[in-house]
Amino acid sequence: VTDDQTDSATLGTAGEVAALRRIFPILPPATAATVGPGDDGAVIATPDGRVVISTDLLVHGPDFRLAWSSPFDLGWKGAATNLADIAAMGGRPTALVVAIAAPLDTLISDLEGIARGLRDACAALAPGVGVVGGDLSASDTLTIAVTVFGDLEGRDPVLRSGARPGDVLALAGSVGRAAAGLRLLFAQGIDDSGEPDAGAASDLVARRPAAVEAQLRPSPPIAAGSAAAIGGATAMLDVSDGLLLDAARIAVASGVDLDIDLHALQPDRDWIAGEAPELSEVSAEIVLTDGEDHSLLATFPADVPLPEGFRAIGVAREGSGHVLVGGADPAVRTAGWDSFAGWDGVAG
Amino acid sequence: VTDDQTDSATLGTAGEVAALRRIFPILPPATAATVGPGDDGAVIATPDGRVVISTDLLVHGPDFRLAWSSPFDLGWKGAATNLADIAAMGGRPTALVVAIAAPLDTLISDLEGIARGLRDACAALAPGVGVVGGDLSASDTLTIAVTVFGDLEGRDPVLRSGARPGDVLALAGSVGRAAAGLRLLFAQGIDDSGEPDAGAASDLVARRPAAVEAQLRPSPPIAAGSAAAIGGATAMLDVSDGLLLDAARIAVASGVDLDIDLHALQPDRDWIAGEAPELSEVSAEIVLTDGEDHSLLATFPADVPLPEGFRAIGVAREGSGHVLVGGADPAVRTAGWDSFAGWDGVAG
Repeated sequence: VTDDQTDSATLGTAGEVAALRRIFPILPPATAATVGPGDDGAVIATPDGRVVISTDLLVHGPDFRLAWSSPFDLGWKGAATNLADIAAMGGRPTALVVAIAAPLDTLISDLEGIARGLRDACAALAPGVGVVGGDLSASDTLTIAVTVFGDLEGRDPVLRSGARPGDVLALAGSVGRAAAGLRLLFAQGIDDSGEPDAGAASDLVARRPAAVEAQLRPSPPIAAGSAAAIGGATAMLDVSDGLLLDAARIAVASGVDLDIDLHALQPDRDWIAGEAPELSEVSAEIVLTDGEDHSLLATFPADVPLPEGFRAIGVAREGSGHVLVGGADPAVRTAGWDSFAGWDGVAG
Repeated sequence: VTDDQTDSATLGTAGEVAALRRIFPILPPATAATVGPGDDGAVIATPDGRVVISTDLLVHGPDFRLAWSSPFDLGWKGAATNLADIAAMGGRPTALVVAIAAPLDTLISDLEGIARGLRDACAALAPGVGVVGGDLSASDTLTIAVTVFGDLEGRDPVLRSGARPGDVLALAGSVGRAAAGLRLLFAQGIDDSGEPDAGAASDLVARRPAAVEAQLRPSPPIAAGSAAAIGGATAMLDVSDGLLLDAARIAVASGVDLDIDLHALQPDRDWIAGEAPELSEVSAEIVLTDGEDHSLLATFPADVPLPEGFRAIGVAREGSGHVLVGGADPAVRTAGWDSFAGWDGVAG
């Protein structure tokens, strides 16, 4: 056993080549790859003749706290949130590339943990998807940049702009779960001075495992994306920033109003009451305004059956980009997450 | 004029939406895009039925110093180095996605500068390539993550592993120019305490414009990549880490030895003597060991004419992954850039 292979080996002591030698075997292969990692570029099959692409950053500080997220969680979340973007276009995810910038003292075993999270999220959420390439660089700030690819299988992409008056507004997956977990972490996963604390987070996980898992390892309904496209969805996106804000994106892009029936979100409020009872009183606000479950919000013509996994939560009406709840202006704030306005500058 | 539009507006004061509103109009559109920025994902045409993908990070500190690189330079380099990876696979670049993580006090006008650099590099090096999507996040460390796409136009990708004994080793583009610029910056673009200094760099640019430009705004021969593939290249990569190191990658992957003729690199040494005369004495070392010109190094069967832009610089022989210079072991170090071993931890 050389020093590169011990648990104390870091990027700074072992170097890039040794790190990659340990990470590569963990990364999942992609069914679609004809050239995988190791050359100047990867090559993946795009049988449709088009490829869907999305990219997202996970940055230490605004996007995660190391006191709360394990390396495995970071890899899982980096895959899950990106896969949801392909699903939201009506595509079938095929592959990822992952670029990581990490401090010199980062343990290589932690990079292996990230790789395991990527692997397990792909296997659980989108079997056949793999990592076809990446980059590894030094940085003072741990940063994970994921770019994801998908195939449209001959269908039109489902944009945000296609909702029509009379359409049914429908949701696949949950709202409020990841947010409940985040609120618990900020309230209870901290030390006496209010800083994120691994011990407090561990105690919280023991009390509220489902809510914390929903935040740290979300499981968006990836297969529902292509099902929605096949089923005639007229508009779609993934709910990353909160139901009201993301619904407004469809409403504005489509030039309609969307009216949400809060009763249809009762199962989400019930889930919060069961898994995070201390948040029961604010569950209506959470399900309407908080994001990160990466569920799929879509509109369908009223005369088609909703695809499996979707439930009706409202309707589209003639209008000009407004979102209503029960026919009225929502009484809660609608601002979603803006990492520049919302980040307090703390990493943790 | 609202505050968002003034030159003093920052990401922290103006926010993500206002920043994107200023950046989007600058970004070049991609000919291949059927869905551009603004939805959950972009869609680009992949007429070949496959897509070539590569991703690279530019991180403040190990990869650039803000005292030396302007925002325009960063955008240019982010595009140029990624485009070279597609060329090195024998592909024609089609599109980029660009994710930027930046400190809260980053001027939006600096993000506009990055966008202009991306735009101008695409226009100069690969017309028709555009930015189809991205992400913008807060971070303590300015980080630019570029992912690039390309089409193979029905050809096989050119891997590193296809060189055969008897092949000609050929180069499109230069070696040593970017490195000469970097050595000048580290020697002369600094203040009295040795720190990167914008004023000293500006004085250096006035004396040595070509060398500094080669480092900060490299111009790899992108079109030579598909020309090489059409012309029968058996192996190829872009010279990012130094000629000896990158040649060794072909030699090892292909199971051959490569013998470089130093006389064939005399034009590169002459260029250094003319544009950076203080480096004349070490020009042989620079052209063999330093990288970042992103020229294309390829092997061709001996009986085919070299494509336009390529010059013979050596031969492939039976062997086991060694690189020779004039038939002998090179007398210079062959270690290329490793951001974990090589970075001094300073940002500047």
